[in-house]
Amino acid sequence: MINFNDLISGIKSQKKLEIAKAITLIENGTKEGIDFLSKIYPFTGNAHRIGITGPPGAGKSSLTDCLIELYTSQGKSVAIIGIDPSSPFTNGAFLGDRVRMMKHYDKPNVFIRSMATRGSLGGLAKKSKEVADIFDASGFDLIIFETVGVGQIELDVMNASDSTIVILVPESGDDIQMMKSGLMEIADLFIINKSDREGTNRLFTSLSQVLTLQNRPSDWIPSIIKTSATKNIGIKELQNQINKHYIYMKKNGLLLKKQNYRYSHLTQQLISEKHKTEFWDNKKNKVLESQLSQSVSTRKSPYQLSEELYRK
Amino acid sequence: MINFNDLISGIKSQKKLEIAKAITLIENGTKEGIDFLSKIYPFTGNAHRIGITGPPGAGKSSLTDCLIELYTSQGKSVAIIGIDPSSPFTNGAFLGDRVRMMKHYDKPNVFIRSMATRGSLGGLAKKSKEVADIFDASGFDLIIFETVGVGQIELDVMNASDSTIVILVPESGDDIQMMKSGLMEIADLFIINKSDREGTNRLFTSLSQVLTLQNRPSDWIPSIIKTSATKNIGIKELQNQINKHYIYMKKNGLLLKKQNYRYSHLTQQLISEKHKTEFWDNKKNKVLESQLSQSVSTRKSPYQLSEELYRK
Repeated sequence: MINFNDLISGIKSQKKLEIAKAITLIENGTKEGIDFLSKIYPFTGNAHRIGITGPPGAGKSSLTDCLIELYTSQGKSVAIIGIDPSSPFTNGAFLGDRVRMMKHYDKPNVFIRSMATRGSLGGLAKKSKEVADIFDASGFDLIIFETVGVGQIELDVMNASDSTIVILVPESGDDIQMMKSGLMEIADLFIINKSDREGTNRLFTSLSQVLTLQNRPSDWIPSIIKTSATKNIGIKELQNQINKHYIYMKKNGLLLKKQNYRYSHLTQQLISEKHKTEFWDNKKNKVLESQLSQSVSTRKSPYQLSEELYRK
Repeated sequence: MINFNDLISGIKSQKKLEIAKAITLIENGTKEGIDFLSKIYPFTGNAHRIGITGPPGAGKSSLTDCLIELYTSQGKSVAIIGIDPSSPFTNGAFLGDRVRMMKHYDKPNVFIRSMATRGSLGGLAKKSKEVADIFDASGFDLIIFETVGVGQIELDVMNASDSTIVILVPESGDDIQMMKSGLMEIADLFIINKSDREGTNRLFTSLSQVLTLQNRPSDWIPSIIKTSATKNIGIKELQNQINKHYIYMKKNGLLLKKQNYRYSHLTQQLISEKHKTEFWDNKKNKVLESQLSQSVSTRKSPYQLSEELYRK
């Protein structure tokens, strides 16, 4: 039996060992983990949750590295959740990118956690939002979700974050895929990284034009920040814009709206899961199995079967 | 009131007007549409459902065009469901790609339908699987889902299809994003289109190597077919491989397994939707609202609230 009070006071003092323990507790997926999440919920909502996404090779890890450097130099604490698509083809590739962050591992006010998605198509790693709650309750000022941008994943990032940052590179200007992949619509801030390379101004101009044409859900128009992570250029400006967006969201009630959305969504999801677990007992599974054993032309339609099972 | 028997006999004779009527009925999302789907379900399961996906510009529409040409010349009927990410940035762009397919519109044994996803992040267009059921019941030999490959979308395509075809171009060899985006794992067949361009053999070799290293769920090893859609090269070979995969799936019970997976999945999904609709009545929504009106630090955790609401 874990003593929740000890664990909570441990994470509240940002003790790394206790935070790691809490994460393991959550990842085990037991009822105890759920109870723990329930206990710490009132202490959340104070961290600024940032999602950083973009195509492979855009420099997400390098920029995250720069942000850690800057924030910690100001006495702020930063937690990073690196989301790595785990596939037979990418195994380890992403984790390797994080090596350069290693130098921060020992800092008392930095916590870095890599999490793998089940299959590269799984969106945000299961439990990453719960881990963010632990960091939030631990009093971290900034929580960064860092994830490669491929399709559905970004939507998850956006929903889990207060501010979503999309990183592009000068070459992205020619890359029609960027436009189509949905990255454009989710960004609160754009970064053009590697901005010492050719094409930066062209991308800046076309991006600006697109942003003015776009119908956005709020009157926030995303800034476009030119950076070079390797040369540590533009990072202070990036921080200013991150803060600006946070203040904007707070003032306009958008931060609360996001928090409420996450609250409602999670509540609905938990209830649906409870129902699914309880509903599909042995008896109902057998009814389904008996239909599956028949040919498509003789079995009940899924519409009929679901109605009958549900009304029973 | 629609006369179901007339409509069903109409679509069974592949009458385009009736098929279009049936699609509209489904898209309206009424109870009548559900009843209709339930009625036609026994007549499904006979079409070969193919998903074609790949990065923008790989030539999906051109290849689909070639396949239509080939199959119809053999007296086979083909239905195409083109999935278009709809976003402020791409509006119309994809539909434009389909213009070249227009010449098939008048053929009696071809039906082409474009469907837009709600936002580019929505995966398969809502109702596209139901529309495929209509085509299936109409006796089409081949149903092609054609969709741009970005993230989550492919997983949807794979689940909706019996055979998934991933189209690459010679330049994809250098494109690490391909590998990371999950396209690699879902393919039953690979096409290297525009194979008269440089890099074809290099991509062929590296792809072959990757495929032999990969752990796949079945002992089917995807073929790699070199094509040039604009020059109509490799299309017959592609058709042979499509048939080979279909026969393999039938022999090994994998086709039935896929059909059963879709049946179970849809049944579960329909039941969850029924529960969600019924569960969230005015009273429960008010309980949720009253929690949202409190600050994060004083409201019940989502875990506690969901438990209380569910047990009530």
